[in-house]
This record gives sequence, C-alpha cells and structure tokens, in this order.
Amino acid sequence: MSLLSVKDVSYSYDGIVNVLLDVSFDVEEGAITGLVGPNGSGKSTLIKNIFDLVKLQSGTIHIGGHEHARPEAKQQAIYLSSNDYLPEFLTAREYITMMARLFDVTVDHGKALALFREFSMEGRYDDLVEDYSHGMRKKTQLVSALVVRPPLIVIDETLNGIDLEALHLAEKEFRRVREEGGSILLCTHDFSVLERLADRTVFLDLGHVVYDEPTGDLVAEHGSVAEMVFDYLETSQR
Amino acid sequence: MSLLSVKDVSYSYDGIVNVLLDVSFDVEEGAITGLVGPNGSGKSTLIKNIFDLVKLQSGTIHIGGHEHARPEAKQQAIYLSSNDYLPEFLTAREYITMMARLFDVTVDHGKALALFREFSMEGRYDDLVEDYSHGMRKKTQLVSALVVRPPLIVIDETLNGIDLEALHLAEKEFRRVREEGGSILLCTHDFSVLERLADRTVFLDLGHVVYDEPTGDLVAEHGSVAEMVFDYLETSQR
Amino acid sequence: MSLLSVKDVSYSYDGIVNVLLDVSFDVEEGAITGLVGPNGSGKSTLIKNIFDLVKLQSGTIHIGGHEHARPEAKQQAIYLSSNDYLPEFLTAREYITMMARLFDVTVDHGKALALFREFSMEGRYDDLVEDYSHGMRKKTQLVSALVVRPPLIVIDETLNGIDLEALHLAEKEFRRVREEGGSILLCTHDFSVLERLADRTVFLDLGHVVYDEPTGDLVAEHGSVAEMVFDYLETSQR
Amino acid sequence: MSLLSVKDVSYSYDGIVNVLLDVSFDVEEGAITGLVGPNGSGKSTLIKNIFDLVKLQSGTIHIGGHEHARPEAKQQAIYLSSNDYLPEFLTAREYITMMARLFDVTVDHGKALALFREFSMEGRYDDLVEDYSHGMRKKTQLVSALVVRPPLIVIDETLNGIDLEALHLAEKEFRRVREEGGSILLCTHDFSVLERLADRTVFLDLGHVVYDEPTGDLVAEHGSVAEMVFDYLETSQR
Repeated sequence: MSLLSVKDVSYSYDGIVNVLLDVSFDVEEGAITGLVGPNGSGKSTLIKNIFDLVKLQSGTIHIGGHEHARPEAKQQAIYLSSNDYLPEFLTAREYITMMARLFDVTVDHGKALALFREFSMEGRYDDLVEDYSHGMRKKTQLVSALVVRPPLIVIDETLNGIDLEALHLAEKEFRRVREEGGSILLCTHDFSVLERLADRTVFLDLGHVVYDEPTGDLVAEHGSVAEMVFDYLETSQR
Repeated sequence: MSLLSVKDVSYSYDGIVNVLLDVSFDVEEGAITGLVGPNGSGKSTLIKNIFDLVKLQSGTIHIGGHEHARPEAKQQAIYLSSNDYLPEFLTAREYITMMARLFDVTVDHGKALALFREFSMEGRYDDLVEDYSHGMRKKTQLVSALVVRPPLIVIDETLNGIDLEALHLAEKEFRRVREEGGSILLCTHDFSVLERLADRTVFLDLGHVVYDEPTGDLVAEHGSVAEMVFDYLETSQR
Repeated sequence: MSLLSVKDVSYSYDGIVNVLLDVSFDVEEGAITGLVGPNGSGKSTLIKNIFDLVKLQSGTIHIGGHEHARPEAKQQAIYLSSNDYLPEFLTAREYITMMARLFDVTVDHGKALALFREFSMEGRYDDLVEDYSHGMRKKTQLVSALVVRPPLIVIDETLNGIDLEALHLAEKEFRRVREEGGSILLCTHDFSVLERLADRTVFLDLGHVVYDEPTGDLVAEHGSVAEMVFDYLETSQR
Repeated sequence: MSLLSVKDVSYSYDGIVNVLLDVSFDVEEGAITGLVGPNGSGKSTLIKNIFDLVKLQSGTIHIGGHEHARPEAKQQAIYLSSNDYLPEFLTAREYITMMARLFDVTVDHGKALALFREFSMEGRYDDLVEDYSHGMRKKTQLVSALVVRPPLIVIDETLNGIDLEALHLAEKEFRRVREEGGSILLCTHDFSVLERLADRTVFLDLGHVVYDEPTGDLVAEHGSVAEMVFDYLETSQR
C-alpha cells in the first residue's frame, strides 16, 4: 500500500509557468524513499502541496489513503525541516507533549528519555530549548518524530550538521521505522545517506520527475547517485 | 611538500586528560585531505591548535613551512566554518575586500563577480549580507576563500545545506584549487563528498589518528568511508 | 470586559517549588497591558499556561470569556515571539494565509500588502521567507497578527531589533488595535515603549504579581518604569 | 579630550548620492554618547568608516588621537554588534583570550569570571560557545569588552533581548567605564536606556547630523527622546 500517493500534481504560482507538471510518485508502506532536487526543481512546492500549505490546483495527493487536506490525512505525516526552530521557551518534554497532542497520540516519555540518552543528551529533557545547541535542537526534532511516530515521516535536510554518532543512530532508527512498517520521505543532498538508506530515489527537476527507480538500479546505471545527479546537471539544458 | 604539517601534537585542557595525544599528519601541496572525527575526537581542538586560537602545548605545527604562530603562517591558511556568520552590515564586496586585506592580497573583484554569477547570486554583490539567505552567506564564504585563495583552505562542514548546484560548483572549484597546487583540509560528515574529492582521509578519534590513508584504500578495505566510520563506532570501546 | 482573565494561577514543575503562586490579573477589552518580569519571575511559565502549552494545575484562565483550553479560546489569541522563526519555504502570502486558516478568518491580502508597503517591504510579499532579513521576518510576524487580528495579541519582545520606522509604525498600529477594541499584552524590557503604550503595567517576580497598576501611576510613584524595576531589583531579597 | 573625533566625513557608494555628508561629532573621554538613526540615516556606513571597513573618502576620523586607519587607533576601540555571532568552537575563556591578544592586553580572567558570576553564568566560562543560549552569547560579548576595555566601546544594539538583570548590570558597568574615563558610543532604539545613560545624543538622518546635544536638553525640548525622534519622522520630508 502507498502511504503517500502523489498523482498528476501540477502547480503554478502565476497561472502561466508550471512549477510542477504532472508529478506522480508513491512512498510505499515500510519503505524509505529519497527525494533529490536542485534549485528550481519544484521540491519545496511539492512539499507545500503535500502538507496542504498551498491549495492543490490539480491532481490528487493521498496520505495513508486519505485525501491530503482532510484532518485524518494530516495526522498521518510529520514534517521535519532543515532548521532548528523549536519554541525556545518550552522544554523538550513540553515540546514533545505538544507535538503528541497535535497528532492525538499518547506520548511515551520513557522512550523519549531513552532516545535522549542515546543521542548524548542525557539529563537535558527538562531543560529549556533556549539552552540547547543547534545540534541538540535537530536531535530533539528527530526524537519528537520518532516518539510521535506517525505512519509517514518527511525529513527535509534535517540531518545536516548533526554529529557523526547522531547520524549513525538516526540511520539505525530510520531502519527500525521501516522494519515496523513506517515510511520515510528523505530529502537530502547527502548522497551517501541516500545510498545507504533509500529503497527508491525520486529525482525531480524543473517540475517533473526525471528518475523514480530503486536506488540500487540508479547506482548500477550511473555509478553513484552523485554521478546521476551531476551528470544530469552537466548535460541537461537547464 | 607539506602545506600543513602537524607533528606529535598533544593537548590537555586540565593537565590530566589528553584531548589530543601525539597527533601527526600532513596535507600535501596540491592535495585534498579529508578529516573525519566523531564527538570527542579532538577535531575542534586540533583546528584551534592549527589556527593558534589556543596555545600549542607540545609538538609542532607548520603552515607553508612556517611555524604556525608566526604571521607568515597565518597568511597561508583560511578557515571556513559551518556557520553563516558574516558581518551583516557589510556588502559581499566589502567583506571580501576586508578578507583580502587581512591576507594582504589584492582582491580580484572580477573573479568574485564571476563566482557570484556561477553561484546564482548575480546582481547581489553590493547588497548587504543582512539581506542574504543562509545559503547565500555560505556561498559568499566560499567565494571569499576562492578569491583570497591562500595556499591552504580549511573547510569545516561549510557545504552543509547549500543547494545542489552550489555543491557541484564548489566541488569543481576545489578540484581547480588542487590542480593549481593549492591544498584543502575538508572536514565533513558527507562521506559521498569525501569519496569524490579527498585524496587522503584522516580519521581521528579520542585524540589520536585511527586511519590516515588514501581514501581509495580505505574504500577498498572497508567498502565505503561510511562503513569504515560506522564499523569503528560499533566495535570500538569508546 | 476582560479579554484575558488570569485568576489564582499556581504552577510547579516539581510539585515542591511554586514557579507561579496565585497569579491574578486581567487584560481589558480595548487596552494595552504591559508585562515585565526578570529571569525567574515565572513570565514564560505564565505564557505557557495562557496558551495551554502546559497543563493548568490550579486557578483559571479565560480568553474572551472562554475557558482557555477550549478551541473557542484558542482562536481569540495570537502569540508573537521574540524570534524570527517563520517557515522558510513559505512566502509571506502563504504564511499569512496559513495563519488565517488556523484562526478561521478570511485573509485580507490587500491589507497585508498595504502593511508591507508601510513597513518598507513593498514587492516582497510573494518572496520566500528564506530570503528575508531578520528585521523583515519580525515585521512579517507583526503583519500577520495585524491582519489575522484576533481579539488578543500577545507580543513577547517581538519589537527587539526592528528599525525605528517599523517601531514607530507598530506603535501606531497597536494604538489602532486598542481604539478598535482589541487588546494587547505587551511583554518588553523597553520601558520607553511601555510608558508610551501600556495603559497598565503588571510587574511579576518570583511567581507573584508585585505591581499591577496604571502605568501612569507607577511612573508618578517611582519616577519611571525603569526606576520601579531597577529599585526593586536592588532592594528586594531575591 | 575627544576619544572619537569624526570631522566632515562624507561617503558615497556610487559617486553620485552621498550616504554621509559632512558628518562631524565627538565622543569625549569619560562620556557616553548615544547615536540614533533610522534606516537610511547612514549610521551603518558611519560605523564602517570609523572601523576602517570601508575606505574613508573625505574628512578625517581620529580614535584616541590617532588617525583611524593606523594600528594604534584600531587598538583603542572595540565594536559589539547586535548579533550573537561568536566562534562556536571556542570557550568563553578562549574567546576572551583571543580578543585580548588582538588588543594586545593581558587578560584578567579573574575579572571575567566575576562578571560571568554577576551575569548569572557562573560555571560556564570553560564551556563551548556552541552550548550557550542567545542571551549568554550577548553577555559574553559584553564581558569581553568590559575585560579587554579599550578606551572606546561601540555598542550597536547589543543589549537587545538580554534579560532585565543583565540590562541592569550592564548599565552599572557602563557607568563604571565612564567614571574610569572610558567612552562609549551607544547605538540603540531603546530610548529609555539612552535617557538613563547617554550624556549626549547624536541623531543622524539622511547622512547628516540632525541633533547633537546633551540628552537632557533634548528631553527638555521635546519631552522625550522618543518624541524627538518620532516627531521628526512624522514631519520631515523624508
């Protein structure tokens, strides 16, 4: 089953130029899908459409089988940004409680505390976010997603700049999410992470899907995800 | 010749625990050397020693053949951080002029403007940094290093979060630096970048050099830089 | 009528120390109330209670006559923080549309555009927040509150660091909000702004209300709000 | 004696429009001078000229009696910005040591530690800046200036957003600097701070000095600094 199903989505800001044109792809249950797109690919607009932050103009998007603008759909997917913007006057405990409420789940603070320990943040769960370093804020975002754990987690460059152990641990947790049937849409320029984790990779440019294949096939064809992307950038008439 | 030569450097903050213990490695002229280190590896302390931000306690560091604390050494190496902290009330032109003055070189604004164009920042050279996005600030840092171009460029996670084209272009420019005999010390967790660019990779942990080999050899032995690092993290008694 | 009514609110994080103890105060319709509190005053905890970000332990809070945890109450009050954290991949238009949807109001983009013009941001309404300076982000927050305009606006150091004209304009807009019957809770350390705008000033310390009087009376008694606060800090047994 | 003497300074970015036109003012020894300017006043350009970040085009600037571009002048004045950008991988001790070296003074760590204690940062002097909150970074900047203590301290909106006790303490320390014969140029929009501290206030607009008078006289004439500024903004043909 598809946890995220994007079908024939087009979008234009001005009614003339299409930023997205007939974009279709799926994120299957129990799968990690990579999403790669250069500037002007339409990636941000696609994410805004998925999360109903702009009004869908054409095509359909379903999350967990529900039409994407419905409340049921919205509780199926969490978005983690590349920023470390958390409410500074909350503690991690309060932040994660708030997120759990938004997603209407009971929060398992024991699990959050265990992740805090693993992510080298033992003893900081009840401190204010305002006293966290950048890295801690990113890790707190990850912990919130792993604890709230809606069926679909969208990770948008969130791993940038976290420490090596945290990266290693995050990868393990993502694999566990997959094993348990959860899905991840992983937007990143770190091709090494993609090659390690992504079952499929979608490469978007100029508003359409250039590739949508098992990552292994793309690597077999092009040598590496990097070569796939950079060769494209070199040779396409962008 | 070594552009950077670190020999038997030890460092302790408290006189008891050694954060660095007999660290030695070289960055050769016309070479890109990767530096990888988890939390607690001593990487930051090593960089602070190289740039004379803390007083060297034992061992020697030479930059371009000069003892590292001498003014001649300091004009041989530029440090780019992972932050995008530039003086907000300067324009890029003023910032790059200031950097060129610090390094006592004549600034080639034509070259800077060409790089601004390539980095998709055409027409912004005389705007205030305060009006730049995060990405633009990172790219401005890169441009300043490429224009000032001291023999050694130390890049500390600076590429995190820049756009794909900028990454592609930066890699090309780094190769050009190498071809022209310049050296780069590249600190990054993006192992894909390391595998593409780094002639050698130094892996530091707990204050000593674990590996210091041609990157190709490390990949041949371990499968990939990621496997080298993550296997180490899994099995070592850290 | 009270738009915000806080009655006998106490709060403890650990069940032993009270961070708030029997705090009561009101923000009247058509009034601007200043809220001043040093570190450890309980101000942040109070705001978290008002916005139902932590569970109320004792006392009552009503917003627009509704019990504060009810959806009807939540649509009566907007919170503006001191940060400039807006979703970077939205335009101002998209951000303000999203906020209006949260508050279930129809957005008047004409009004937003007029405010953008007044705040010296003409032509930037459809640009991505990621390309905004810090000042622009703060001003966009203000515009969103002024356009969505729920009955109560809570401003928590939001004016810090904006330019002089924006400060002047914001003050005029706040006065207009008051004239139209709206209410503002203004948390700021800029005592000059308080003296110009706040009908009443509430001074909180160590979890209880020290002063809650017409600002004019406090100035008459103490010479200035600054003297009121600093004399208190000097002489109290904190 | 003037610690800072600006005489007939004009500056144009394009050779046509003057951003500064014949600007003259002095900061006396043992005095605090306020500097207020709206957007487009030329204030930033003036500061860039004072600190030799752009090349002086006409007029003269002397710091401590030395021509401003000379090394002797540069060691007489420190600039504190509104940002909290400190090198994240240094501790406060290392940062302050580095600043002291730049100004060629011996650092008194005992004094720095005492200020850390007063500023509620006890026990954090040897922690990495990367683990400091925004407020702590600002306070560390202040401590560095108070410890290095060159004859002239330029404070550019640095107090924005610090906590009340820190503001109170900073004001006391600024008064002490003045008593000891030091000088401060205080750029701020917090008019209450200006009225409390500034012996004189210089109001700059459109590149020329509108007012340069004892702050008490300006308050006597206009009612308050705020009224002086806002009346001007209302009535001038900007």
